[in-house]
Amino acid sequence: MTDNAPTSRTHPRTPLTPLTLLGTGAMGTALARVWLAAGHPVTVWNRTPARAEPLAAEGATVAVSAAEAVAASRLVIACLLDDASVGEALDAADLTGRDLVNLTTGTPAQGRARAAWAQERGARFLDAGIMAVPPMIGAAGSGAYVFYSGSAALFEEHRDTLAVPAGTSYVGADPGFAALHDVALLSAMGGMFAGITHAFALIRREDIAPKDFAPLLQGWLTAMAPMVHTAADQLESGDYGKDVVSNLAMQVAGNATLLRTAEEQGVSTELLTPYMALMERRLADGHGHEDTTGLVDLLIEGP
Amino acid sequence: MTDNAPTSRTHPRTPLTPLTLLGTGAMGTALARVWLAAGHPVTVWNRTPARAEPLAAEGATVAVSAAEAVAASRLVIACLLDDASVGEALDAADLTGRDLVNLTTGTPAQGRARAAWAQERGARFLDAGIMAVPPMIGAAGSGAYVFYSGSAALFEEHRDTLAVPAGTSYVGADPGFAALHDVALLSAMGGMFAGITHAFALIRREDIAPKDFAPLLQGWLTAMAPMVHTAADQLESGDYGKDVVSNLAMQVAGNATLLRTAEEQGVSTELLTPYMALMERRLADGHGHEDTTGLVDLLIEGP
Repeated sequence: MTDNAPTSRTHPRTPLTPLTLLGTGAMGTALARVWLAAGHPVTVWNRTPARAEPLAAEGATVAVSAAEAVAASRLVIACLLDDASVGEALDAADLTGRDLVNLTTGTPAQGRARAAWAQERGARFLDAGIMAVPPMIGAAGSGAYVFYSGSAALFEEHRDTLAVPAGTSYVGADPGFAALHDVALLSAMGGMFAGITHAFALIRREDIAPKDFAPLLQGWLTAMAPMVHTAADQLESGDYGKDVVSNLAMQVAGNATLLRTAEEQGVSTELLTPYMALMERRLADGHGHEDTTGLVDLLIEGP
Repeated sequence: MTDNAPTSRTHPRTPLTPLTLLGTGAMGTALARVWLAAGHPVTVWNRTPARAEPLAAEGATVAVSAAEAVAASRLVIACLLDDASVGEALDAADLTGRDLVNLTTGTPAQGRARAAWAQERGARFLDAGIMAVPPMIGAAGSGAYVFYSGSAALFEEHRDTLAVPAGTSYVGADPGFAALHDVALLSAMGGMFAGITHAFALIRREDIAPKDFAPLLQGWLTAMAPMVHTAADQLESGDYGKDVVSNLAMQVAGNATLLRTAEEQGVSTELLTPYMALMERRLADGHGHEDTTGLVDLLIEGP
């Protein structure tokens, strides 16, 4: 092998970080494949061993227990069903000196509790939230990325390895922040999809082709998404009357046309009304001249 | 005046279409200003005359009645409070031979009824839905545009004039389609804003700057908006199991993390639950392997 020879899996010029991956469901398998293809030594474990076997053919070492898998690499990545599965899988493993990256979906509180749990066991810990579905992992230009939060030292040491299957976004030392960012974006997307569902329902019985309507819908939502920056400015300043282009009173008045159109088209208003009800509550509180940003505060419960 | 002299308002080389604008609220005034600046002879009328007067200084002729304003130009543009205001304003006007373009916000059924009403009175009719707020009118690169539907002949004859203050999108001969497109996009935007409101609420009490979070939110919503094309394909084919990347059963399972996170953060789930309830109904109907596109059908009432 000369200096100019391409790197190979078995004899890379610069040894690539070995890693252990716990959980070979759809996401874990997609991740393992990309790391294997890039030349990383990968040890895998899955509770149901048959689901890990296909990766052996691609070069992975299949461990017979999670404890054995953890012993194989300092960098341990968990991509399991839920937070409880992480505790169960790692119960008998020695985490001393390990770098545990938790890609398992969970809540911010679960991320924080798991961080404390891992630190007690002698591991550095990074929680993560994957902003992608498995087919996007390792696909060029897919836009897939992962939020990370927790140990900055762990992130800095392994960021190149973590960046192999998807983009990386470190959002803070608080181990709850990765899950919080993940869930916040998914929640916002759920709202957008609810709106899209209602919009398609409105045209469903008309002679309007969904394929002709879809580009208009995408264009409009994309054009309006930058309104988040106005909302962010208002939230930071606390001045919800700043830079208002369509105030709450005008928007509440406009809602009547949206509701009446839904009724004309025979479409349930159930996806529209909760947001409208919130707008009406805020209007009744005397904030008609402000932007809708104040609705954020109405959602927050307690003192 | 030589051939090379610039066109002026009073002696344009090619006479620009004179037009009448009924209604000089914020939107009507913004439109009138752009047409006046472009050199169109503009006659304006407003129920409260004082609100039309400022446009006289910019070159508009202020009519004392709607009937007089309608008599002044063949092209008549109504931008009034609501559909009832259109009927009231034009009650005493002679619409014979007029081209009436209705920019007044309304429902599809109102657009259809107003088209029949205008045709009975001898006018061609085009209904419209404005996808902009007044500050966007005439602003370069604002993305402002207007949906038009109804008389294709009217649209073709006046499209250059109509294109002066904002982009134009003709969506069909059915005079209800402009309002339907308008309301469908606004409804979808309402869903997106509801989701954005929930997302900001989730981070509100944390040490996360809204200005740092906003670009992530915009990026994610923009990246996910193209999912409307998958939904459109599925709606056209009737096959909701085609090209599914995250099926309904998986999404319903994931909702638990969204709800639990909201509870942890002290945020009401009221904006999330109606869409989740719809997902659960569809799952209970045995569609867990499909995409969420089938939710569209659940919203449509009646036979």
